[in-house]
Amino acid sequence: MSASLVTFLSDFGTADVFVGVCHAVVLRAAPDARIVDLTHAVEPQNVAAGALALASAVRYTGPAVHLAVVDPGVGSRRRALCLETADGSLLVGPDNGLLWPAAEALGGATGAWDISEHAFRLEPVSATFHGRDLFAPAVARLSCGTRPSALGPPIDLDTVVRYHLPRARVEHGVVHATVLSVDRFGNLELDAELGDLVAVGAAAGSVVELRTGRAEGRVLVARTYADVPAGSLLVHEDSTGRLAISLNAGSAAERLAITAGDAVTLAAADE
Amino acid sequence: MSASLVTFLSDFGTADVFVGVCHAVVLRAAPDARIVDLTHAVEPQNVAAGALALASAVRYTGPAVHLAVVDPGVGSRRRALCLETADGSLLVGPDNGLLWPAAEALGGATGAWDISEHAFRLEPVSATFHGRDLFAPAVARLSCGTRPSALGPPIDLDTVVRYHLPRARVEHGVVHATVLSVDRFGNLELDAELGDLVAVGAAAGSVVELRTGRAEGRVLVARTYADVPAGSLLVHEDSTGRLAISLNAGSAAERLAITAGDAVTLAAADE
Amino acid sequence: MSASLVTFLSDFGTADVFVGVCHAVVLRAAPDARIVDLTHAVEPQNVAAGALALASAVRYTGPAVHLAVVDPGVGSRRRALCLETADGSLLVGPDNGLLWPAAEALGGATGAWDISEHAFRLEPVSATFHGRDLFAPAVARLSCGTRPSALGPPIDLDTVVRYHLPRARVEHGVVHATVLSVDRFGNLELDAELGDLVAVGAAAGSVVELRTGRAEGRVLVARTYADVPAGSLLVHEDSTGRLAISLNAGSAAERLAITAGDAVTLAAADE
Repeated sequence: MSASLVTFLSDFGTADVFVGVCHAVVLRAAPDARIVDLTHAVEPQNVAAGALALASAVRYTGPAVHLAVVDPGVGSRRRALCLETADGSLLVGPDNGLLWPAAEALGGATGAWDISEHAFRLEPVSATFHGRDLFAPAVARLSCGTRPSALGPPIDLDTVVRYHLPRARVEHGVVHATVLSVDRFGNLELDAELGDLVAVGAAAGSVVELRTGRAEGRVLVARTYADVPAGSLLVHEDSTGRLAISLNAGSAAERLAITAGDAVTLAAADE
Repeated sequence: MSASLVTFLSDFGTADVFVGVCHAVVLRAAPDARIVDLTHAVEPQNVAAGALALASAVRYTGPAVHLAVVDPGVGSRRRALCLETADGSLLVGPDNGLLWPAAEALGGATGAWDISEHAFRLEPVSATFHGRDLFAPAVARLSCGTRPSALGPPIDLDTVVRYHLPRARVEHGVVHATVLSVDRFGNLELDAELGDLVAVGAAAGSVVELRTGRAEGRVLVARTYADVPAGSLLVHEDSTGRLAISLNAGSAAERLAITAGDAVTLAAADE
Repeated sequence: MSASLVTFLSDFGTADVFVGVCHAVVLRAAPDARIVDLTHAVEPQNVAAGALALASAVRYTGPAVHLAVVDPGVGSRRRALCLETADGSLLVGPDNGLLWPAAEALGGATGAWDISEHAFRLEPVSATFHGRDLFAPAVARLSCGTRPSALGPPIDLDTVVRYHLPRARVEHGVVHATVLSVDRFGNLELDAELGDLVAVGAAAGSVVELRTGRAEGRVLVARTYADVPAGSLLVHEDSTGRLAISLNAGSAAERLAITAGDAVTLAAADE
């Protein structure tokens, strides 16, 4: 198997043929490519949501070529970007911050190239579908071993658009967190980690005081859903290493009526 | 092509990156694997719905490694299971009944192994995402020819959690059936077969009396949609060999306002 | 890589196992097949919508075997069809017009075969799922190099059911167009091209008078979203070469409250 693994994330949805067409363009130039769809359900043009999802996934794929397209500025002068990371992965997409958290998750960016004018693009390049015309042909070549330097000039890493995922604050014994995302099961992923709870005197097995804008209550810091009775909330370390608020046998998002972007606080509960 | 076909069914949805990450984990260890997504839209934590969908699909794939994850007990002491079936297929997933109807559809289980502690799992194994950390790495090895016995100890088939799909009753000339599922077209699949109609004196080409909790009426037992006028109901043998209630050029589920789990009766219509 | 690329489009949705089962049937007979899903979200039984989506995609895949199933007449006497096109591609699906616009997009049909009775079908062929039993096994063989003539008798191209995509009229200096489709971003694709605007005295960079059944206003003919302020409408050539009405950083479909099938007119704006 000579071709690298390719992953693909976008806000294209799957109701239109956009995703399939990009697959076909990659396979036309790289018949041995194996393409894994991470998700195409990123909220349209929500670069932050796309960046979070990509950064959560890339640690589990091994070295790969990651294609990501959430691109409100398509057709404008924003650059088309290829980043190389410390683990040898390549990230391809618009230079709008989308790729940056994933690069950090892979040990940091070690090189960057502007591939806006690469020789393998599909002409005429449309003004609105660079996934097909610009990015997919680049990814095909990179997956076969073409070096990024063959697709465009190197650029200074300091000029790449950066975006940093939110990060909870710990102040006066309280973790001030934000809901990063809500998954299909209604689990609320926070921008906090177990270490933040430890810093405020809580830990696995203890009870914390949870406050949202609407409600407050005591919740067990547990390991998994089944550690609390059905219908009970828990706080736990989720599968990407972040704190999450969940409900055993139900949806925490529905129970608490909060969603991505909302603020919550966690503190050690009084005895 | 040395690797077995892998199928994958879950309740993960495709809005999050869960499914893609599992694909990547399989492909990292088994670069030649061919993975077919059966569906990931099983209602969250509905083991019965997942079991039905899996059992409907496996007969058409040929010998394969089937990965299925609908797992409300993830992280608890429920076992991680590998079943071998009479046709040489392998079924991998939680020991909660999910795999059992599929095993029966493949001729019955002939062996079982507890793979909860297999050596290829991703450490640290998360408490909430065994699809990624435990099941996908197992499936990768099985698709390359590793025997289940290399992944864990054999277990007594009598200890495996069993679940049996519902099955219509025939009593006093009436078929008492339940709607198993509703597909995208609004076809209502029943837990009955054509033989049940024959047993009550109806058959292909005859008219039956259909009763739901809301309505009753006469419906033709036909072969396909076009056998009745547009806008008319029919009863027919569907593509998985079960009886279904359909509407030519429309949705029977909408017309009858019934859904999965609802009861219907069928009887031969009086002359 | 010996097998042709296979694409697959249907109205099956992905909530049921239909699509996955078809993949497995293809791979069982053609283990090296690479299958690209174009979309399975075509509105149930909407042959025109499926034909449009297929025709938009096939130009970007290179020579391929295209499987398309939107098939309200399944199980009736409608023929199962294989078309060969000028570029060497093969189109497989029901003989109901679904394949015709794609054949035209590929240079026109050069041959047709009735594959309803081909020798590789899965017996017993169900009355309602020819995707699995009839079309997928045919596509598997065609992707491996089997000629269509080995799957059934040639038929006269004049007897193939034809469907033509709508096409805007230009009359008295006004482009009378119809919305063909709305994509996930709310872009409204019209059945008109930039040449139609030129014919009425408008062109890239000019302003046109846009009228819907509900509203009228002046809109810039631009190249891409970023050419107008956020929240402004534009008319532009979209990525399939048609005119589209879009909204920078928003949904034109929501703003204008129109959808597929609705009529709009475009005319050069008075100075």
